[in-house]
Amino acid sequence: MAGLTDPDLLFAPETRTLARALYAGVKDLPIVSPHGHTDPRWYALNEPFPDPAQLLIVPDHYIFRMLFSQGVRLEELGVPTLEWAPVETDGRTIWRRFAEHYYLFRSTPTRLWLDHVLEHLFGIDEPLDASTADRHYDMIAALLSRDDYRPRALFERFNIEVIATTEGALDDLKWHRMIRDSGWHGRVVTAYRPDAVVDPDFEGFLANLDRLGEITGCDTGSWAGYLEAHRRRRAYFKEFGATSSDHGHPTAETANLSGAAAEELFNRIRRGSEDERERKLFRAQMLTEMAKMSLDDRLVLQIHPGSWRNHSPAIFQKFGRDKGFDIPTRTDYVAALKPLLDCVGLERDLTVILFTLDETSYARELAPLAGVYPALRLGPAWWFHDSPEGMRRFREMTTETAGFYNTVGFNDDTRAFPSIPARHDVARRVDCAFLARLVAEHRLREEEAHELAGELAYTLAKRAYRL
Amino acid sequence: MAGLTDPDLLFAPETRTLARALYAGVKDLPIVSPHGHTDPRWYALNEPFPDPAQLLIVPDHYIFRMLFSQGVRLEELGVPTLEWAPVETDGRTIWRRFAEHYYLFRSTPTRLWLDHVLEHLFGIDEPLDASTADRHYDMIAALLSRDDYRPRALFERFNIEVIATTEGALDDLKWHRMIRDSGWHGRVVTAYRPDAVVDPDFEGFLANLDRLGEITGCDTGSWAGYLEAHRRRRAYFKEFGATSSDHGHPTAETANLSGAAAEELFNRIRRGSEDERERKLFRAQMLTEMAKMSLDDRLVLQIHPGSWRNHSPAIFQKFGRDKGFDIPTRTDYVAALKPLLDCVGLERDLTVILFTLDETSYARELAPLAGVYPALRLGPAWWFHDSPEGMRRFREMTTETAGFYNTVGFNDDTRAFPSIPARHDVARRVDCAFLARLVAEHRLREEEAHELAGELAYTLAKRAYRL
Amino acid sequence: MAGLTDPDLLFAPETRTLARALYAGVKDLPIVSPHGHTDPRWYALNEPFPDPAQLLIVPDHYIFRMLFSQGVRLEELGVPTLEWAPVETDGRTIWRRFAEHYYLFRSTPTRLWLDHVLEHLFGIDEPLDASTADRHYDMIAALLSRDDYRPRALFERFNIEVIATTEGALDDLKWHRMIRDSGWHGRVVTAYRPDAVVDPDFEGFLANLDRLGEITGCDTGSWAGYLEAHRRRRAYFKEFGATSSDHGHPTAETANLSGAAAEELFNRIRRGSEDERERKLFRAQMLTEMAKMSLDDRLVLQIHPGSWRNHSPAIFQKFGRDKGFDIPTRTDYVAALKPLLDCVGLERDLTVILFTLDETSYARELAPLAGVYPALRLGPAWWFHDSPEGMRRFREMTTETAGFYNTVGFNDDTRAFPSIPARHDVARRVDCAFLARLVAEHRLREEEAHELAGELAYTLAKRAYRL
Repeated sequence: MAGLTDPDLLFAPETRTLARALYAGVKDLPIVSPHGHTDPRWYALNEPFPDPAQLLIVPDHYIFRMLFSQGVRLEELGVPTLEWAPVETDGRTIWRRFAEHYYLFRSTPTRLWLDHVLEHLFGIDEPLDASTADRHYDMIAALLSRDDYRPRALFERFNIEVIATTEGALDDLKWHRMIRDSGWHGRVVTAYRPDAVVDPDFEGFLANLDRLGEITGCDTGSWAGYLEAHRRRRAYFKEFGATSSDHGHPTAETANLSGAAAEELFNRIRRGSEDERERKLFRAQMLTEMAKMSLDDRLVLQIHPGSWRNHSPAIFQKFGRDKGFDIPTRTDYVAALKPLLDCVGLERDLTVILFTLDETSYARELAPLAGVYPALRLGPAWWFHDSPEGMRRFREMTTETAGFYNTVGFNDDTRAFPSIPARHDVARRVDCAFLARLVAEHRLREEEAHELAGELAYTLAKRAYRL
Repeated sequence: MAGLTDPDLLFAPETRTLARALYAGVKDLPIVSPHGHTDPRWYALNEPFPDPAQLLIVPDHYIFRMLFSQGVRLEELGVPTLEWAPVETDGRTIWRRFAEHYYLFRSTPTRLWLDHVLEHLFGIDEPLDASTADRHYDMIAALLSRDDYRPRALFERFNIEVIATTEGALDDLKWHRMIRDSGWHGRVVTAYRPDAVVDPDFEGFLANLDRLGEITGCDTGSWAGYLEAHRRRRAYFKEFGATSSDHGHPTAETANLSGAAAEELFNRIRRGSEDERERKLFRAQMLTEMAKMSLDDRLVLQIHPGSWRNHSPAIFQKFGRDKGFDIPTRTDYVAALKPLLDCVGLERDLTVILFTLDETSYARELAPLAGVYPALRLGPAWWFHDSPEGMRRFREMTTETAGFYNTVGFNDDTRAFPSIPARHDVARRVDCAFLARLVAEHRLREEEAHELAGELAYTLAKRAYRL
Repeated sequence: MAGLTDPDLLFAPETRTLARALYAGVKDLPIVSPHGHTDPRWYALNEPFPDPAQLLIVPDHYIFRMLFSQGVRLEELGVPTLEWAPVETDGRTIWRRFAEHYYLFRSTPTRLWLDHVLEHLFGIDEPLDASTADRHYDMIAALLSRDDYRPRALFERFNIEVIATTEGALDDLKWHRMIRDSGWHGRVVTAYRPDAVVDPDFEGFLANLDRLGEITGCDTGSWAGYLEAHRRRRAYFKEFGATSSDHGHPTAETANLSGAAAEELFNRIRRGSEDERERKLFRAQMLTEMAKMSLDDRLVLQIHPGSWRNHSPAIFQKFGRDKGFDIPTRTDYVAALKPLLDCVGLERDLTVILFTLDETSYARELAPLAGVYPALRLGPAWWFHDSPEGMRRFREMTTETAGFYNTVGFNDDTRAFPSIPARHDVARRVDCAFLARLVAEHRLREEEAHELAGELAYTLAKRAYRL
């Protein structure tokens, strides 16, 4: 192959011809990005991106966790500490450190994404290593200073039809307002992420409830007022394009308490109950409350459970959240979701999208559940599993029971804006390779595979997320 | 490919030639169906099958659960409610609804099975969709009215050497008696399924015990009489060809109580104990009791654990059991089976066949257990996993530790009689493809693969089930 | 193929050319065997090996468990009972029994290993079965009597650069001393396995502590003296080349008690506490204590959790340990290791190597943990999973998150000395086939694959184990 990414990337030799043909039909489809974490400020202000290291290395937990695992300190990579202890600030130095260790990423998705970015965004065709680090750095830095590398220009170049960001329930959405008021035609929507006001373990939870009351003019000292405040925030988020809410609970546990019991639980929580079971039950109940609100306002409800956040207290204390120390855990869905499903699972106008970090649930629990409950759909392979093998396992373990049409296409789920085309490209390639295999084994007709390739790359996401 | 099913179905291009050769050696072997749920009444009365929808759609939970998941109501598919609320009764309308949604089944086993039935049983070579629905319906309906499409004719055409049905312990086996008395040479045997008289949570359990006493003339008010009643029923089932019993418990839990403790537990259960632990313990103990009876009467004991039955109470209340809402759960075997294995696991004349809905147990628990305990064998990939990927995973995850000879061939496990040849065909193809891969990688010699293909398709089932 | 093992063994046809090329670069690399159970007495005394059955069948639990599962009694295979009841002693008879049942091992790793041994060590090219059993037996027996088939000659012929054995903490290492004093240049090192003096459930635990005190001159009646005794034994083992310790706990549970709490716990345990939670907690605490000692003496710490030892009490009572009745169990790492990781997980000079018998932990827990904690590395696919499919799953499920460089190459983990080259050969082939697939799909450049093949076959093991 010439360059960094082969045109046949991810296509098995034995089914390559068909995979190529399927991919040719979808590679230029617009990007629908219904779930992600890019910063709306970028699109609002449209300022140039910072230096290559600040853009591509420092904020990427996939990258710094791997280097950290091999003995590089986070400070050496410019990752800021909570107390602003001195860390490396020279972009070129950070970039060189990364380049020296780039071999660590062999056969990881980070490697695929970054090679794609280097070649397709920055026109680089030499492999990154210590010897090429400076040359690459200079090329990227030069391009980042150009107007056609500003956020909105890239958004358009990337052919993004719509992208969702994620904002907390207390966010004023000012960047979204600025985008809307700017007259720019790029479609950037928000999503409602209320963890800070539904999870009693969240930092500052009680103060957050007070703040929620101030923002909405509701009495968040009462259960009714608290629910009403959610309704108003959801409506406010919908004004800025939101079509979904998102919930990142430690488990998939749900509850279906009576109104009176829920109110009493809220009252105890509101008074600062330290009872771990009550706090857990409240989170569980709130998933069901959110689902009930979705019946009215039609927001799609996303559940992202099963991450043990901030596993290392030493790292958490020094560097804070999202530093690569979120570890997947075993996750049950069959018992955990039953209360929510008993309440709203048979609703045909509700969409609840389930994600997992526990692949053992794909064939055993998630596909059987989504293959019968009308309200359920399966989100794509998530986080550590958003990788060629991970996506292949997702299809192999869900399709035979849930089919393709109970899945929702691809989520890039990223804050790494430059990598968005790479991520969608990898997903499209993996799906085309999977479909090619089915056709080669006569499990699917070729024309069906072409139709499905388009569904998986584009249509299912639009439909499931109501975009 | 011409028609609906390619001659190379399920053969990977890179090992196709050998897979074909292996398959050629087994495709015409008689069908041994040692575990299933067809209705013995069919073979007894030999009446024509009903209309295409009543035969192929309405009773098939794989089909209606998928359509339900995408918003079709069960009533629209003719699924009867418990209270006989009006549901669609027009076969053609139901068939059309199904045809419009047939694309949902892409890459599911239902699609493979149904395409096989359409082509090989009904001579159809056009894909099913809304545009062909009526034509297909007419063709099928016309054939179903012919004598050579009656149950016994199909049984013979399907080349079924022996088929097992499953009857409850209280069944009088009158259809089996009628088959036997009819002089027809088709071999239809029963299997002993005592869930209704061993599971205290079964509907009408205590009345069932009374009835068991009446039927057998035993005092089912006493532990000794209750056990004797089982022995007599097992003997009765054996008169109608039974070579196996079958047990569908929520978990694989077993117990090995002393005679006195078991008797005391029975007495409490017999008096209607509501203690959940006692009820569970009784089920667990009864698996061991059944195994001990098998030592005497040589019935093969099958354990089918791990399904959370009737997950949706709303559906259960309206439509009853078996409506697609049985969801697999995580299942332990290592601790759960220990009491039974401590009691009878080393017996070389006992056969206990283990099934699972939790594929994580294949390599971790089931293969290591079956690879050492003489009494244990592994049943094939079951239910949601009776699919090409599911069967491949079963072989990949069990063979290296348990070998092929601790497995028992294929079970179709179906009440969908017309699909039986399709199901065995898929299983034979998947196994031949798996064996071809082993030969291609020089892990097996070609002559061994031919021998194994026959074992997996035919001999292992006969031997394991003593048929 | 001519002979028993094809030159293309384990290479998929579609990527064979590249796999061959990669394999050519590593097949003759020296063997580094950093974890195993060969008997140091062999290398010390250099006596001829016993007859073929005593060498290859009787001590191999992979072999006798499979035959036992199919009805052969252990006595018939010469497996000694604890009370020295009569068992088969005639090597030829045992060998014939094995040969008659050799078909049971089709598609198991035992078959691959043994065919390799037969062909490459004993020059046999006919498949083993009842008809060839005697001929094979005679050939093997004749060779075993030759000087160039004695342990040291084979060690050299096998091109073993270094091999680790495993000795209990109370072992006097006399065979290691004899090897060292003999002037032979073969590098045989020990490893520190303290289960008998850290696990209160171990047979004779309290007496073992007394003995530990005598050996070391430490007061093992006190916590401080007990810890000091460990330090001295570790230092002693290091004199005989040890670079690692090894810990075979039922679970991965660790603890991180304060010094005072640990001391108090030790005192209760030392007085013979029967409290199961305390005994468990002590084992858990001792893993952390060992890790802290590793910070000082740099022994690599290996954790081998999750085996339910001696599952059948009847077999255990009659035949003792290691009779094929060790069954894997579900194993948690995320919560279990947290206390140890909180204590030492961020240390860059510590190496803790994690093994698992629960493959569900690969992608969900182990790769995410090893992909961020500097102290963690992943051991290779272990025990039942040390097989082509098992090793492939290991790579597929760990590489995308942990990369290759957080793994430690291959362990043969065997007491079956003649099979060591076969085991390393299978591992090298599986890794080369995996890498070839990555190159064929353009996920890796060819020169990277060559470099990685060498790392996986040789360098990673040396580096991780500090050999």
